[in-house]
Amino acid sequence: MNIKLVLKLVGRVLLIEAAAMLVPLAVALLFRESPAPFLLAIAIMAALGFGLSSLPAKQQFFTREGFAAVGLIWIFTGLAGALPFFFSGYFATPMDAIFESCSGFTTTGSTILTDIEALPKGILFWRAFTHWMGGMGVLVLATAIVPKLGIRSHYLTQAETPGPVFSKLVPKQSQTSKILYTMYLVLTALEAFCLKIAGMPLYDALIHSFSTAGTGGFSNRNASVGAYGSVAIDVIITVFMLLFSINFAIYFLLLTKKWREALASDELRFFLLVVFGATAVITLTNLSVYSSAGESLRYASFQVASIISTTGFGTADFVLWPQFSQLIIVLLMFCGACAGSTGGGMKCSRALLLLRAIRREVRRITHPRSVEVVKLDGKLVSESVLHSLLVFLGAYVMTVFAAALIISLDGFSFSVSFSAALTCVSNVGPGLELIGPSGSFAAFSGLSKGVMSLCMIVGRLEIFPILVLFSPSAWRRT
Amino acid sequence: MNIKLVLKLVGRVLLIEAAAMLVPLAVALLFRESPAPFLLAIAIMAALGFGLSSLPAKQQFFTREGFAAVGLIWIFTGLAGALPFFFSGYFATPMDAIFESCSGFTTTGSTILTDIEALPKGILFWRAFTHWMGGMGVLVLATAIVPKLGIRSHYLTQAETPGPVFSKLVPKQSQTSKILYTMYLVLTALEAFCLKIAGMPLYDALIHSFSTAGTGGFSNRNASVGAYGSVAIDVIITVFMLLFSINFAIYFLLLTKKWREALASDELRFFLLVVFGATAVITLTNLSVYSSAGESLRYASFQVASIISTTGFGTADFVLWPQFSQLIIVLLMFCGACAGSTGGGMKCSRALLLLRAIRREVRRITHPRSVEVVKLDGKLVSESVLHSLLVFLGAYVMTVFAAALIISLDGFSFSVSFSAALTCVSNVGPGLELIGPSGSFAAFSGLSKGVMSLCMIVGRLEIFPILVLFSPSAWRRT
Repeated sequence: MNIKLVLKLVGRVLLIEAAAMLVPLAVALLFRESPAPFLLAIAIMAALGFGLSSLPAKQQFFTREGFAAVGLIWIFTGLAGALPFFFSGYFATPMDAIFESCSGFTTTGSTILTDIEALPKGILFWRAFTHWMGGMGVLVLATAIVPKLGIRSHYLTQAETPGPVFSKLVPKQSQTSKILYTMYLVLTALEAFCLKIAGMPLYDALIHSFSTAGTGGFSNRNASVGAYGSVAIDVIITVFMLLFSINFAIYFLLLTKKWREALASDELRFFLLVVFGATAVITLTNLSVYSSAGESLRYASFQVASIISTTGFGTADFVLWPQFSQLIIVLLMFCGACAGSTGGGMKCSRALLLLRAIRREVRRITHPRSVEVVKLDGKLVSESVLHSLLVFLGAYVMTVFAAALIISLDGFSFSVSFSAALTCVSNVGPGLELIGPSGSFAAFSGLSKGVMSLCMIVGRLEIFPILVLFSPSAWRRT
Repeated sequence: MNIKLVLKLVGRVLLIEAAAMLVPLAVALLFRESPAPFLLAIAIMAALGFGLSSLPAKQQFFTREGFAAVGLIWIFTGLAGALPFFFSGYFATPMDAIFESCSGFTTTGSTILTDIEALPKGILFWRAFTHWMGGMGVLVLATAIVPKLGIRSHYLTQAETPGPVFSKLVPKQSQTSKILYTMYLVLTALEAFCLKIAGMPLYDALIHSFSTAGTGGFSNRNASVGAYGSVAIDVIITVFMLLFSINFAIYFLLLTKKWREALASDELRFFLLVVFGATAVITLTNLSVYSSAGESLRYASFQVASIISTTGFGTADFVLWPQFSQLIIVLLMFCGACAGSTGGGMKCSRALLLLRAIRREVRRITHPRSVEVVKLDGKLVSESVLHSLLVFLGAYVMTVFAAALIISLDGFSFSVSFSAALTCVSNVGPGLELIGPSGSFAAFSGLSKGVMSLCMIVGRLEIFPILVLFSPSAWRRT
C-alpha cells in the first residue's frame, strides 16, 4: 500500500473542501452571522491539507490504493466537514457534529437536531451544501477541478461511483467528471428556479435544491418540505427527486441524441415500475388516513419518491401510516435508486439482476440442458459481474444486521435498531418509530452515532472501499 | 412435466403418512380418547392415496419432476396432517389446523394454540410426531421404506435435503436413507431414555424427543421445557438440540471411523464458534436480568441452542431480555443449523461461504493478479455451487421480506411482521414481541396464517422446489 500517495490525495481533497467552505462563509457574512466557525475550520483544513499534499510519494497507484484512498478521503471529509458544526456551538458533542457531517456528505440526511430552525443560516447552508458535494462525489469533483492529480484517477472514481458496472461517458476521466458536474449543476439550478417561481424564498430554494440534487434530505425547516404546504412545491420536488435517482449516463445519451440507447435501459423501466407500483398501492392503503384519494396520492407519491431516491424529505409522517405502507417504505429503502445516480440503497439494477439470477436458477432446474444467461439492456452480464453483485448484496444485508446489533445496545426496539441501520447504510434518512420523518437521531449513544456515521460512508461507497481500508491483506507488502 | 407420475408419488406418500397415523391412533386408544379424528383422517388419506397411486404414468422422471414432486408432496403432507387436528374440534378454523400441521412437518414449531394442555394426548402426540417425520424428511422416509418407488429417487432426496452440497453416504439412495433413519431413531431413543431418567414422564419424554430430533419445538406443556424447572432436563435437551443441528454425514464418518474427515468440517467449527460466542455474549448481557452468572448461562445456552438449531423450545422468554440479546437471537434465526441436519435457517455452511466470498472479493481488489479461490473443508468450492448459494441467499432474504409485507396487512408492528416471516422461513418457531416464546400465532388473519404455512414449506425445502412448482417454465412442454 502506497500510503504516502494516499495521504497526499487526502490532503488535496481537504484543500478542495476548504475552498468549498468559502461558499457558506459568504452566506454567513451575507446574513451578518459570525464567520468564526468557518474561518477556524478552513484554517485547520488548509494547514492539514497543505501538510499532507506536500508529502513526497512514489507514483505507484493501483486498484488497491484507489479503494483505500477513497475510503480514507471520505472519512477525512466527514470529519473535516464537522468542524464548522462543532465550532458553531449548536452541537452538544463532537460526535453529534461528525454524525451530521457524515449524514450530509453521504447524502443520508438523518439529523441529530431537534430544532433545525434555531441554527444560523450559514451553518444550515453548509449542511445542505455537503449533500450537493457528496451526491455526485467529492472525488468526481476533485478530478473535474484538478485534471492532473498525478495518478490514474479512473481507480478513484470507479470506487466512488455507485452501481454494479462502472461506465465512463467519454474516454478521459477528467472530461467525464466535468460533463457529470455540468449536468448536475444545470439540473440543480433548474430546480432552484422552479422552487423560486413556486413561491419559495431563494435561500430555501437553494437549500432544497442542493438536498434534492444529492438525494440527501436536509431541510432548513423543522417540518421539512411539509412546512410549505404547497402542492406545486411538492410536485416540483417529487419530480426532481426522481430525476436525480436516474443514471446520469442516460441524460448524457439523451444530450448526444442516442434516444434508443437511453430508453432501452432495463433499470430505468424497473425503477419507474417500482415507483408507480408502490405509489399506487400506498395510495390505496392510505385511503383510510386521508380525506380524499387525491390527498392520499399526493402524500404517497412524494414519500415514495423521497424514499426510493433515498432523499428523505417529508411531507407526511409515514410512521403514522398503516403497517403495510410502512413495510413498503422499508423495502424501498433496501432497493434504492438507479446505479450512476446520486441516490443510495442497493440500486435497482442489482435488485433486477438478483431477480433474473433467481429466474435463471429455476430454469436451470427445469431445463438442465439449455444454456441460460442473464442479460441487462439486451447485453450479456458476465458471470464475474454477477458474482460480485451477489457478494455485494450478501455483504449489504450483513452490514445492516451487524450495525443493527451494535445499535441495539441502546435498548430501543428491533424496529428502531434495524431501521436505523438500514436507513444509514442505504443513505435514506428517516427510519421507523421514534426516528421517523418527524423524529431525530439525538437519543442514540455516542457509540451508535459513530457506528451509524461509518455505516453511512460504508453505504455511500458501496462497502468495498472501507473493507479494503480495514483489510490486513491491503496493507501487506507485495 | 410428467404430472401423472408426480401425483402418483403424492399418493404413495399419503399412504405412508396414513400408516404413520396409526401411531397416534394407538396413543389415543391407550389413553381412552376418541379415535375418530384419526380414523376419519386415515380413511380420507387412504382413499386419496390409493386413487392417486394407481394412476397410470410413464417413467420419465428428471430434476424438474423431482423438485415439483417434492414441493407438491410437502403441500399435500401438510394439508393431510391437518385432518386429525381439524376433526378433533380444538382448532377454530381449517386454516388453523393447516398452520399447525405445516408448522409440525416443517419442524417450525410455531403454534396457534393458547392452551396446549387442554388438548387430547393423541392429538399432541401426532403434533410432535409430525416434527419427527418432517425433520429427516418424508421423502427420505419414503425411499427408506419403499426402495423401489419406480423412479430415480436421488432427485427426490436431493430436493428435500437441506444444504448447498448434497452428498450421499453410500452409492445407493435407499441404503443412504435407511442409514440416516437408523441413526436418527437411535439418537431419538437415546434422548427419550435420558429424559426419562431425568424424571420426565415417558409420554412427555417421547414428545420432547420427537420435537428435539426434528428441531421442531412443539411441547405438550404450555410453558414448554420451562414447565419442568429441571437443570438436568435443560442440559439434556440443550445437548440433543445441538446434536441434531449437526450434519448427519459427520456421524456416519464417525461410525465408519473416519475421524480425521469428521473433525475437519469447517461448518462444524463455525457452528460451535457461533454457539459458544452467542452464549457467552448473551450470558454477559443478561447478567442484569438474572440473579447469578450461572443462572444467566443456563438460560442463555438453552435459548441459543434452541434458536440456532431452529427448534424453538423455551425455558426463558427472550422477549423480556435486553434488546441486544434479542438481536443476537434474530441473527441466529437467519444463520440456522448445519447443512444435512434436521435444522433450518440459511445453514452455517452458507453463512461461512458468504463470508469467504466477501473475503475473496476484497483480495481480488487488493491483489488483482493472484488467483483466489473459495474453499470448504480444504476442498475447492466450484464457482457454480458458490453462484447457486449466493442466489439462494438473495432469494431467502427476498422471501422473508415479501412474506413480512403480506403479514403486515394485519397491522402488527414491523418487529412482529418481520420476525414472524423470518421464524417461519427459517423453521424456528417463536418470533419477537407478541409471538415470543410465551406467545401464540392465534391473532393473525387467515391470509397471514396461509402465507406463513407456505413460508414454512418454502423454508424447509430451501425455496427452489416451490419456485419450480409455481414456475411456468416447469410446465412448458419440452
